[in-house]
Amino acid sequence: MNEPSSAPQLTLTAVPDFPLIQPGDDLATIILERLAAAGMALQDGDIVVIAQKVVSKAEGRLVHLGEVVPSQRAREIAAQADKDPRLVEVILQDTREISRVRRGLIIVEHRLGFICANAGVDRSNVAPDARQEWVAQLPRDPDASARRIRRRLTEATGHQVAVIINDTHGRPWRVGAVGLAIGVAGMAPVQDLRGHADLFGHALQTTQVGLADQVAAAASLVMGQADEGRPVVIVRGLRYAVREDASAQEILRPREQDLYR
Amino acid sequence: MNEPSSAPQLTLTAVPDFPLIQPGDDLATIILERLAAAGMALQDGDIVVIAQKVVSKAEGRLVHLGEVVPSQRAREIAAQADKDPRLVEVILQDTREISRVRRGLIIVEHRLGFICANAGVDRSNVAPDARQEWVAQLPRDPDASARRIRRRLTEATGHQVAVIINDTHGRPWRVGAVGLAIGVAGMAPVQDLRGHADLFGHALQTTQVGLADQVAAAASLVMGQADEGRPVVIVRGLRYAVREDASAQEILRPREQDLYR
Repeated sequence: MNEPSSAPQLTLTAVPDFPLIQPGDDLATIILERLAAAGMALQDGDIVVIAQKVVSKAEGRLVHLGEVVPSQRAREIAAQADKDPRLVEVILQDTREISRVRRGLIIVEHRLGFICANAGVDRSNVAPDARQEWVAQLPRDPDASARRIRRRLTEATGHQVAVIINDTHGRPWRVGAVGLAIGVAGMAPVQDLRGHADLFGHALQTTQVGLADQVAAAASLVMGQADEGRPVVIVRGLRYAVREDASAQEILRPREQDLYR
Repeated sequence: MNEPSSAPQLTLTAVPDFPLIQPGDDLATIILERLAAAGMALQDGDIVVIAQKVVSKAEGRLVHLGEVVPSQRAREIAAQADKDPRLVEVILQDTREISRVRRGLIIVEHRLGFICANAGVDRSNVAPDARQEWVAQLPRDPDASARRIRRRLTEATGHQVAVIINDTHGRPWRVGAVGLAIGVAGMAPVQDLRGHADLFGHALQTTQVGLADQVAAAASLVMGQADEGRPVVIVRGLRYAVREDASAQEILRPREQDLYR
């Protein structure tokens, strides 16, 4: 499984009829139940991509803004960004460093190292609350969440699978949010092609491929944005390097090597 | 076809046995021949994703470094970057503005507006030349290339398809290159979700989705990096907005709205 990943065919299938998730729900069990009910089953090599929002909900990473008392700093940033100071307080709880603040926009380095808007805090698809005062934070440790779900899936099925938790982030230079991997278990998230040759035997110019991010983006196409409708997607047909100690942290470019902070 | 794109299942299939491409080759005809030979056919709604390298080769966008005389500016930048001054000269031909230069690295704003390393000029999979002195530039107008191929495919099959030309670029903040759309025909490259609701009837927080880039990334997984082996991938099952006047330029964030130049 250490060859370059590639396959003549890749299929991405949503786990059908996924229920609304509540705090405390066991995602691995629900995935297996929904697959079984649809006559589907996991196979060796499958990658199970799970939307961050359902992981956050299952783990109870929900905050009601009515219970948040904004700090002075949150009030100041909220004034700059023209946002709810209570929402900004929740954002700051998960923020390592503010990157940019503009009207309507707060971009931060999340405590997990991702650079993203609002530290991933989001109101969409969280709760049927007319005032939208429930917000979801990213999972506390998405790699650990992915490992936990992977272990359950592997124990229950006997199959070697990988798990990616994805989220949808904006990015510099290009318009439109795309799916990215924020948690990874069981696969090398970055494919290393050093030593591989092109068609003519020359060393490849591209040596690192953002494999997990590409899988996350592909799965996003199937999930759509009303993401709790189809929050789990099975990716079948990709070759990847199995790695027990994988982490989405490997995808983060070290600050000192980043020319665009 | 104007609903949010999403599908319970997406399949990505490489066009089998794709030949090595020479300048002057007609890609649309070759795609149709290879599909027919494999007993495959295009369907309405398919997206045909084509690797930039084969489009560049078919269009003769090849330069032999032996015929390049570097300018003084190319020599200076080459010294800074520790690169071949002739290669830098070719890069500068397609450069609107230099973004960053470091040892081993030249990042530019391409004349087409993409920000990428080496203006997309690449030695991999170009020619069986031991000294690797043949390099490929990006197509002169990838949107026009995509439109031309789409028109040929539509005329020949009677089916409504879209075409994306993809390339693999590095990006800020995250390690690993990913597939991106550099040319688009027949589909809105950015999906606009303004006015759409989440599961609970609230306005969605994410309003623009980088649909064509996500399709490009997904197709890259099937192409692999030795990209002329599987340079054409058929994506089936995605709903998207058909647009005759689509352009990859729509994906570029206007400079004045970009906080990370």
